[in-house]
Amino acid sequence: MSALLDALRAAVGVPNVIAEGDLTAWEQDWRKRSRGRALAVVRPGTTAEVAAVVRQCASAGVSLVPQGGNTGLVGGSVPDATGAQIVLSLTRLNRVRRVDAANLTLTVEAGCVLQAVQELAASHGLLFALSLAAEGSCTLGGNLATNAGGTQVLRYGNARELCLGLEVVTAQGAIWDGLTGLRKDNTGYDLRNLFIGSEGTLGVITAATMKLHPQPAAVMTALATVPSMASAVALLQRAQSRLGPGLTGFEVMNEFSLALVRKHFPQLRQPLAAAPWTVLLEQSDTESETHARALFEGLLTDAMGSQLISDAAVADSLAQSKALWHLRESIPLAQSLEGLNIKHDISLPVSRIADFVATTDAALQAAHPGVRLVDFGHLGDGNLHYNVQMPEGRDAAEFLHQHEPVVNTLVFDAVSAHGGSISAEHGIGALKRDELARRKSPVAMQMMHGIKRALDPAGVMNPGRVL
Amino acid sequence: MSALLDALRAAVGVPNVIAEGDLTAWEQDWRKRSRGRALAVVRPGTTAEVAAVVRQCASAGVSLVPQGGNTGLVGGSVPDATGAQIVLSLTRLNRVRRVDAANLTLTVEAGCVLQAVQELAASHGLLFALSLAAEGSCTLGGNLATNAGGTQVLRYGNARELCLGLEVVTAQGAIWDGLTGLRKDNTGYDLRNLFIGSEGTLGVITAATMKLHPQPAAVMTALATVPSMASAVALLQRAQSRLGPGLTGFEVMNEFSLALVRKHFPQLRQPLAAAPWTVLLEQSDTESETHARALFEGLLTDAMGSQLISDAAVADSLAQSKALWHLRESIPLAQSLEGLNIKHDISLPVSRIADFVATTDAALQAAHPGVRLVDFGHLGDGNLHYNVQMPEGRDAAEFLHQHEPVVNTLVFDAVSAHGGSISAEHGIGALKRDELARRKSPVAMQMMHGIKRALDPAGVMNPGRVL
Repeated sequence: MSALLDALRAAVGVPNVIAEGDLTAWEQDWRKRSRGRALAVVRPGTTAEVAAVVRQCASAGVSLVPQGGNTGLVGGSVPDATGAQIVLSLTRLNRVRRVDAANLTLTVEAGCVLQAVQELAASHGLLFALSLAAEGSCTLGGNLATNAGGTQVLRYGNARELCLGLEVVTAQGAIWDGLTGLRKDNTGYDLRNLFIGSEGTLGVITAATMKLHPQPAAVMTALATVPSMASAVALLQRAQSRLGPGLTGFEVMNEFSLALVRKHFPQLRQPLAAAPWTVLLEQSDTESETHARALFEGLLTDAMGSQLISDAAVADSLAQSKALWHLRESIPLAQSLEGLNIKHDISLPVSRIADFVATTDAALQAAHPGVRLVDFGHLGDGNLHYNVQMPEGRDAAEFLHQHEPVVNTLVFDAVSAHGGSISAEHGIGALKRDELARRKSPVAMQMMHGIKRALDPAGVMNPGRVL
Repeated sequence: MSALLDALRAAVGVPNVIAEGDLTAWEQDWRKRSRGRALAVVRPGTTAEVAAVVRQCASAGVSLVPQGGNTGLVGGSVPDATGAQIVLSLTRLNRVRRVDAANLTLTVEAGCVLQAVQELAASHGLLFALSLAAEGSCTLGGNLATNAGGTQVLRYGNARELCLGLEVVTAQGAIWDGLTGLRKDNTGYDLRNLFIGSEGTLGVITAATMKLHPQPAAVMTALATVPSMASAVALLQRAQSRLGPGLTGFEVMNEFSLALVRKHFPQLRQPLAAAPWTVLLEQSDTESETHARALFEGLLTDAMGSQLISDAAVADSLAQSKALWHLRESIPLAQSLEGLNIKHDISLPVSRIADFVATTDAALQAAHPGVRLVDFGHLGDGNLHYNVQMPEGRDAAEFLHQHEPVVNTLVFDAVSAHGGSISAEHGIGALKRDELARRKSPVAMQMMHGIKRALDPAGVMNPGRVL
C-alpha cells in the first residue's frame, strides 16, 4: 500500500495525504455511532486531482469513501473497520465557480459549506433555499449525495429539486461535466438524479449548478396548538389552499417533544400552553410585511373560528421568529440530554399520518408500557422524526440494547402498512442497509444492483453503503 | 413469428393483437415525418398483460415500441421499417387507480389522456398542472416517458417534477411497484427519474402517482410588447421578483411569428401593435381576482414606466385570456400553413438568450439571405422553439432538402457555444439520435450505454431510440 500512498502524494501533494496521527475527525461519524479505520485521508484540491485519486485507488483495488462535512446520520461517510479504505475528503474543493444572477443559478464546488452557499446567494440579493440543522458544517456535495431535506422542502424541494447540473468523477476516474444551468434538457437519461442521493456509491460529485430564488419581501412565523394530529393535517390543507406556494414551512411537534425542551432548556420561553400537538407555520411573501401579516393572521383567525386550532402566537419581529424556530430546533438536543433514543426518519402520505401516529403510538405503548414518543418533523412533507424514548427512570442504553430491533420492526412494519418510507431524508448509508434489502421490492433491488455494476463494476465507490 | 402472435393473443385477447389491415395510426408519427411498419399492434388492458407481452417478445427476441397517444415530435413511438417490431399500445391501460385529495396526489394508468387527468383533478377541486398543446390526445405515460414540458413549467416543473411514483414493467417483464405518494423518500437510487425521460428504452411505464396543487383563486393573463429580447429577459426577472411563484407563464413570440398568425388567421384579433417581441404573462393568485389584478397591473405599469415594455393589454375575462393564449397557440399551425420549416426545440441559460438570438439570427441571415425566423417559446424556462423558414417565395421542401443539415449545424453549434441543450422538451427519439451521439460528452454517453445494458441487456425496449 505504500506505493499507492506515494502515488496519492504525487497526485495531491504530501500534506494532503494523511495516513498517521489522530484521524478521528474523519473516521468517526457525527453521532458517534460508527467508528472505522482509514488507510489514509486524501484531500484533493481540484476535480482533476479527485479523478487522479480515483484512478490510483481503482488500479490498486482500494476502495474510496467520499466525505464532505461528515454530518450524515447513517454512517455513510466514514470508513469501515478494515483499515483498507481511503477517505476522500472534499473539503478543499470549495471554490465558487460562477454566480449567474440573471439565470438564477450558482455553480460551486462540492466542498463548499452549505451556509457559505446561502451567504453567497444572499450577497447577490437572492435566496439559496436549502436549509438544515447542520448547515454550518455540512457541504453541498454531501447534501447532494444524500439528497438532503430540511425545513423548506415544502416550497422549494429537497437538494434534488434545487440542482440543475453536476460535475462528477466516475468510478473509472473520468470527469463528467454535466454543469448545465438549464431548466429544461431532455437529452438522454437523467444521470444527474441518479448521482443525487446515491451516497457516493456510483461516483464523486465534485461541483454543482444550483437554482436560486428571489428573496421574499417578508417572512411570517407562528406557533399554533392543535388538539390532534388530524387537526394538524386539516390545518396544513387549509394553509396550502390559502397561501399556496407562500407556505414555506409547516413543522409539527408533539407535547412530549416540547416538554423535553421545557425540562432541559427552561430559559426558552414557550408562548403557548401545552397541547397534544404544536405546529410551526412559516409564510414567505413576495409583496410586503403588511400583506403577509394580513394574510397570515386571516388564516389563523379563521382556523381558530372553525376550531382547527386552540391558540396561536404570531412572531412580531425577526427575533421572535428566530425564537419560535429555536424551540423547534432544540428538540434534538433536548432528547439527547434526556438519554439515547431509538430514532426513525420516516415519511408517509399526508393522508395517512394521523392514523399511523394513533395506531403506532398505541402499539408501542402496549408492547413497551411507559415508553415516551418524541414525535416531531416536517409535516408539510409527510416527514416525521418518530423517536422512541425509554420509559421514565429506565436506563437509556439498556433500553436501546434490549428493545431497538423489535421497536424498529414494529415501527417499520407500520410504515410499510401505511405506504411510507423508512428513510425520508437521512438516506441508507451503512446503518439501514440491511433494512433496505429486507423491505425494498426485489425488482427495485435488482435494478439498483444492475446500475451499481454498470457504473462501478470494480466496486471501488463506497462499498457496503446503500446496497 | 406466428407462434409469437398466438402467444400474444393468448395474453391479451384476440381483438387486441392487430396484425392486419391499416395500421397507419400506429405506424406513422403525428408530424408524418416517420413511417414504419409493425409486425403487430398489441393492446394490453392491464399491467399484468403488459408484463406478459414483454416476456413473450423478449423470449422471441422481438423488440417493442411503447406507444401512448403517438403525439411525440421525434419519431420515438413508431416502429422502424423492418416490420419486425411490436407496437405496444398503452391506450387501453387507462384506469384511475386512486385520488388522494388529502395527500394532493392521484394515481392513474399510463394510457390516461392528459386532459382526462386534468379533468379528474378539477372534479376534486384541485389542479393537475401539466398542460401542453397535445393534451386532448397525448397520454400521461407518454408525457412521463418523454418528460413533457408545456406552458406551466416555470411554476410547476416538467412532467418529472410532478411525478412522485411509478409502476414500471421492466425489460425482463417483471413489475416494479414504485407507486409511492411520498414527497420524501431517500431509500436508494432514483429509479423513478431514470425511467422518466428514457423514452421507452429501459422499460414500460404502466402507472404513475402524480402531484396535485390547490386551484388558484384567480388567473390573470396579459400581452406586453418589448423592444428587444434583452427587455423581455429583464421583464421576466422583474416579474419573478415581484410575483414570485405567482408567475405561472412567461411566453415570448417574435414579430414574424405573430405576422404569420395575422396572415393565416386574420380573424384573430391582435390587441397590440406589432413589435420586435411580444410577451404573454400569466399570473396565478391564491387570494382573489381583486388582489391578482392590482398586483399584475402594478407590475405592468411599473415596467412601462421604466420603459421595459412599450405597451400592454390585460385580459378582462376568461374569454379574453383564452384569446390571448390562442394567439400564442396558433403559431405552430400558422407556420405550417406558411410551409415546412426547420424546427429546433432548444434551451439556454436565461442569461444567454438575448446574445444567442442576436448572433444566431445574424449568422443565419448571412448564410441564407432572406431567411425568416419563427421564434417563440417558453422564455421563463429558457426554452425557445427556434424555427427557420425559407426566404419569401422560395419552395419550402426544396429549402429544407438543400439546407436543413447546415442550418442544424449552425444552430446547434451556437446552442453548444451558449451552454444550451439541443432538445429542451421534445426528447431524442430516432430524429436526434445521431446529433446526440455527436454532441453529448463521451463520458455521459458511456454511462447511458452502461445503464441501457444493465436494465435491458437483450435490447428489446425501443432499440434505435435515444442511444
